[in-house]
Amino acid sequence: MFLEKINSTEDLKNLKIKDLDPLCKEIRDYLIETVTETGGHLSSNLGVVELTVALHHVFDAPSDKIIFDVGHQAYTHKILTGRREAVKSIRQEGGISGFPKISESVYDAFGTGHSSTALSAALGMAKARDLSGGDNAVIAVVGDGAMTGGMALEALNDIGAYGKPLIIVLNDNKMSISKNVGAMSRHFGRLRIKPSYRKTKRRFKRFLRAIPLIGKGLDRLISRFKEFIKRIVLPGTIFGPMGIKYVGPIKGHNIEDIIDCLKNARGEEGPVLLHIVTKKGKGMAAAEDDPARYHGVNGNGDTGGDTFSAALGRVLCDLAEKDDKICAITAGMADGTGLVPFREKYPARFFDAGIAEQHAVTMAAGLAAAGYKPFAAIYSTFLQRAFDQVLHDAALQKLPVKIMIDRAGVAGADGSTHQGIYDIAYLSLMPDMTLLAPCDTSQLKKMAGFAAGYPRPICIRYPKNCKTEYPEGDYALPEYNGEGGFNGALWQTLKTGTDKVTLLCAGNRMLDTAFSASEILGGRADINIVNACFIMPLDHEYLEKLYSEKHTVITMEDGILDGGFGAAVLNYYNRSGRTGMRVITRGIEEKSVPHGKIETAFIKSGLSGGSIADLILSENGRA
Amino acid sequence: MFLEKINSTEDLKNLKIKDLDPLCKEIRDYLIETVTETGGHLSSNLGVVELTVALHHVFDAPSDKIIFDVGHQAYTHKILTGRREAVKSIRQEGGISGFPKISESVYDAFGTGHSSTALSAALGMAKARDLSGGDNAVIAVVGDGAMTGGMALEALNDIGAYGKPLIIVLNDNKMSISKNVGAMSRHFGRLRIKPSYRKTKRRFKRFLRAIPLIGKGLDRLISRFKEFIKRIVLPGTIFGPMGIKYVGPIKGHNIEDIIDCLKNARGEEGPVLLHIVTKKGKGMAAAEDDPARYHGVNGNGDTGGDTFSAALGRVLCDLAEKDDKICAITAGMADGTGLVPFREKYPARFFDAGIAEQHAVTMAAGLAAAGYKPFAAIYSTFLQRAFDQVLHDAALQKLPVKIMIDRAGVAGADGSTHQGIYDIAYLSLMPDMTLLAPCDTSQLKKMAGFAAGYPRPICIRYPKNCKTEYPEGDYALPEYNGEGGFNGALWQTLKTGTDKVTLLCAGNRMLDTAFSASEILGGRADINIVNACFIMPLDHEYLEKLYSEKHTVITMEDGILDGGFGAAVLNYYNRSGRTGMRVITRGIEEKSVPHGKIETAFIKSGLSGGSIADLILSENGRA
Repeated sequence: MFLEKINSTEDLKNLKIKDLDPLCKEIRDYLIETVTETGGHLSSNLGVVELTVALHHVFDAPSDKIIFDVGHQAYTHKILTGRREAVKSIRQEGGISGFPKISESVYDAFGTGHSSTALSAALGMAKARDLSGGDNAVIAVVGDGAMTGGMALEALNDIGAYGKPLIIVLNDNKMSISKNVGAMSRHFGRLRIKPSYRKTKRRFKRFLRAIPLIGKGLDRLISRFKEFIKRIVLPGTIFGPMGIKYVGPIKGHNIEDIIDCLKNARGEEGPVLLHIVTKKGKGMAAAEDDPARYHGVNGNGDTGGDTFSAALGRVLCDLAEKDDKICAITAGMADGTGLVPFREKYPARFFDAGIAEQHAVTMAAGLAAAGYKPFAAIYSTFLQRAFDQVLHDAALQKLPVKIMIDRAGVAGADGSTHQGIYDIAYLSLMPDMTLLAPCDTSQLKKMAGFAAGYPRPICIRYPKNCKTEYPEGDYALPEYNGEGGFNGALWQTLKTGTDKVTLLCAGNRMLDTAFSASEILGGRADINIVNACFIMPLDHEYLEKLYSEKHTVITMEDGILDGGFGAAVLNYYNRSGRTGMRVITRGIEEKSVPHGKIETAFIKSGLSGGSIADLILSENGRA
Repeated sequence: MFLEKINSTEDLKNLKIKDLDPLCKEIRDYLIETVTETGGHLSSNLGVVELTVALHHVFDAPSDKIIFDVGHQAYTHKILTGRREAVKSIRQEGGISGFPKISESVYDAFGTGHSSTALSAALGMAKARDLSGGDNAVIAVVGDGAMTGGMALEALNDIGAYGKPLIIVLNDNKMSISKNVGAMSRHFGRLRIKPSYRKTKRRFKRFLRAIPLIGKGLDRLISRFKEFIKRIVLPGTIFGPMGIKYVGPIKGHNIEDIIDCLKNARGEEGPVLLHIVTKKGKGMAAAEDDPARYHGVNGNGDTGGDTFSAALGRVLCDLAEKDDKICAITAGMADGTGLVPFREKYPARFFDAGIAEQHAVTMAAGLAAAGYKPFAAIYSTFLQRAFDQVLHDAALQKLPVKIMIDRAGVAGADGSTHQGIYDIAYLSLMPDMTLLAPCDTSQLKKMAGFAAGYPRPICIRYPKNCKTEYPEGDYALPEYNGEGGFNGALWQTLKTGTDKVTLLCAGNRMLDTAFSASEILGGRADINIVNACFIMPLDHEYLEKLYSEKHTVITMEDGILDGGFGAAVLNYYNRSGRTGMRVITRGIEEKSVPHGKIETAFIKSGLSGGSIADLILSENGRA
């Protein structure tokens, strides 16, 4: 019963080393119990219990800065830094965040969420320390998967050159969300099979005891012999040439070993990387066996049903069967994006770039330039990393890269760092870009087929789940006319009403909201509902028809208002001199949306069925 | 007289090896003559003459794919691939581009401009080759500076793991635009001082001749000995552990050596990196001595006068003198961004992240989190690389990072890849972001002081040159009210007229255009001109005043219209129910702007004084 007495890191420091193992066991049980209830990241948190306990045992947070890269493995850190009870509300609306947040605790030195940022932030803090003459430690805890992210390597380059103390804890659990890929991962694998750092050290000490030497001579012998061993016996690391001392591998569930290594690292005069080998899901048999499955646990809120991701996997397999130019690309997220069936069926045409969205997109552009049809499936929030590559390499060159934007729109429990609410705005500024949003999984399949034949860059955005399948009707996607335009209607009327109010809905969730509004209205109003499945370009003919028929237009989108779909509609009417046109834009009002229920974000922004119904009644009353 | 006979790569292949050196001499003379006239990148092109001649001598473009990273060093490539005469028009309006362009030539395998993209594109093309059973070579020519860019390292990780043939030519001239920094650069430096690859090989062969062995036994001995030498004598490289064979250093102006190495590389069964050491500015004494100065030559079109960049350098030095929390950060562009004086005066507080914008911004966020006041000066077009970092690490955390966006707006001769026309749009979508645009260098100085004390993320955007200094008047920047808002006016009236037409101008260039329009109008109209120096947030009070006084508002910005400043004004009026308000938005109409004069882009988009004057007359006639 140690855990219940730990209310601060001071309490932890007062524990004896021998008590830390039982404490870890208690933390593990607490994590399994809590996360199974609330939902959240389980496997990764189970893997770093000993590491986190050791970190807070050795270092003095908050003056020592501990930065957790990605941050979804920081639950133990939260438990140990005064948030043991609060963890029961993790990721819940009004509860604490699933990620470190500067605003949540002084112990959260830097907020994380996206991968590979911790090293840069840590270097900034190390430089701040040195400028102000401090001597605090700065520690970045980085997963092996995150090391493939370009900005981590940019930071290593700078850290190595800077040469001042900075501790990198490489938390190597042999996987990120999916299995790791790439030369770096293979490199870590080779390092992992060496005898452990502590074992080598023990053996060396035993060997030395046999030699009758004392004082400085001994020290020199030791250091020279260390160098020799490093050069001859151990495989070279990429860190050495970059000026970063490598120490490892270290057994990641032996708390004494970790504490020992951390203490030594604290005394180093330059940057050091501790290679700690942990087991994802450690201590929970099911999670150890299948850590990917227990990476994110859904708690009680899972909706089930078909997902757009699964539909994409199916349709890409179908397309690939008929067309050997079809390829699929993921950036370390084969599971989440639904590409596993494709990987199994067409391994030669499946490319996992690792956590490296920039590279993934430009590699897709290279494939496209060479006549292939690459589909890169990337979460909306992670595509932000490849903003310049989408613009500079795909769009400006008009290369037919197809980007499947999963998890578009409000993210829910992951919160502000993972919102997919910016993509419409940042894609809208790109030249020669086409952006689609399917109303349901059947339309996603159609659109993927359309994209396969489309000779220019194209993005398709959709959320994870699809609650509703809409009746197909006679709508067919338009044909590309070869000159940047289309023949045929871009938008699809899903409901024709008698009132002069038209809802232009971007995507499945907005259509669900629109039909919910229509249902709430019952006989009080009879509106028109349009599936604005082409977000870019807009359906100008449709907009002109609405203008000439004097409709009130309400745009609805699952994204921010500035630079979004509604803003584009407004721009269109204004620039074509339709100044009398009444356009009401609804979208996500706040540009930073905290974790919580998706519905809550919608309600706050007037995107619920009830709020839209009220708006329509007031518009009808106004006319 | 070889050059005049080279009209295709076939002609080049027909030359004898001994003729290649004189050809290189002619090319060098031609480059110096042409670029001094047209303007463009000189030093980097002089450095790669032999390398480029060797590439086209050994490989068969366009079936072999040669990709020049960054691309501003591809002039010799253009000369050799049918564009010898066209090079006289390089970067000129209507002439050929200063960068490789897929649309310009089949020999330009992939368009480049921003750094570090070539490896990813090359890997895509190598994968396409392997899928289609081809055997063409794929060659990426990458500078040593570009190797610090994260996406280059992401690609290396994937290339090493893929393991199929791909040739990386590391063009090591010891510098990118400014002097290189970082551990990688130091690493290359250590490799550079090894005996040259060819010399080692020759020595080894001589040694072997003394041993009486033939056939397979010899081969085995050779390969074993090579491995031994590599392990013991040569320093380890970061490429080996990544599965990429390292060959080098190779003398970059010895064409026989290069050809020999390229031929060997062509026969490799896996990825190989050739480390070629070249001299930037080679063959032109002045450029060899000061390659940074001759990096970009201005031709006949330089405007001179004060620059915003120089003004920034001065004010940051002033601020740093009074406040030891002020730091300056560049991403490999100390010269271009005006930070050289700061580097000299405050070396401890100056941080060059290398070509690594992602790392630069997040390191700034780390400094800010630790209480420092980091000013990161980055070109608008390169800040695109750090889009996610500005959003995820600075904006979402409300950290007081100050980003000085240089070269904002239309780029001119560099063309489509380097346009600074997207920043307003992509920054407008960020939470808690403030975006300013100074009317002149004095206001930039004021704004930098304002930014130093501002407790939230802030960006200031400006072009390079400042033609006009505007009379200061009694305008003072407003005070931050501590709650995300300001006390005092955000915008500054620079001219008060009697007509009900108001020009809202974002930045110096737009004000110049507005005053030019006013001058053209003479007595025919008397308009109001506003310095809308706060692009975010908008000056709502000012907008309300214009509404209540029934003004016609014309917004003017040096950026694209979708998601820009004008769109935000339009959004504001629409969302606050001011539907009768007449707003005309002027900005860059085309989302992809080719190289040419800045004025031409403005004229095309109706942003000339004349066009604005016409617009005003038609508006006045309309009222």
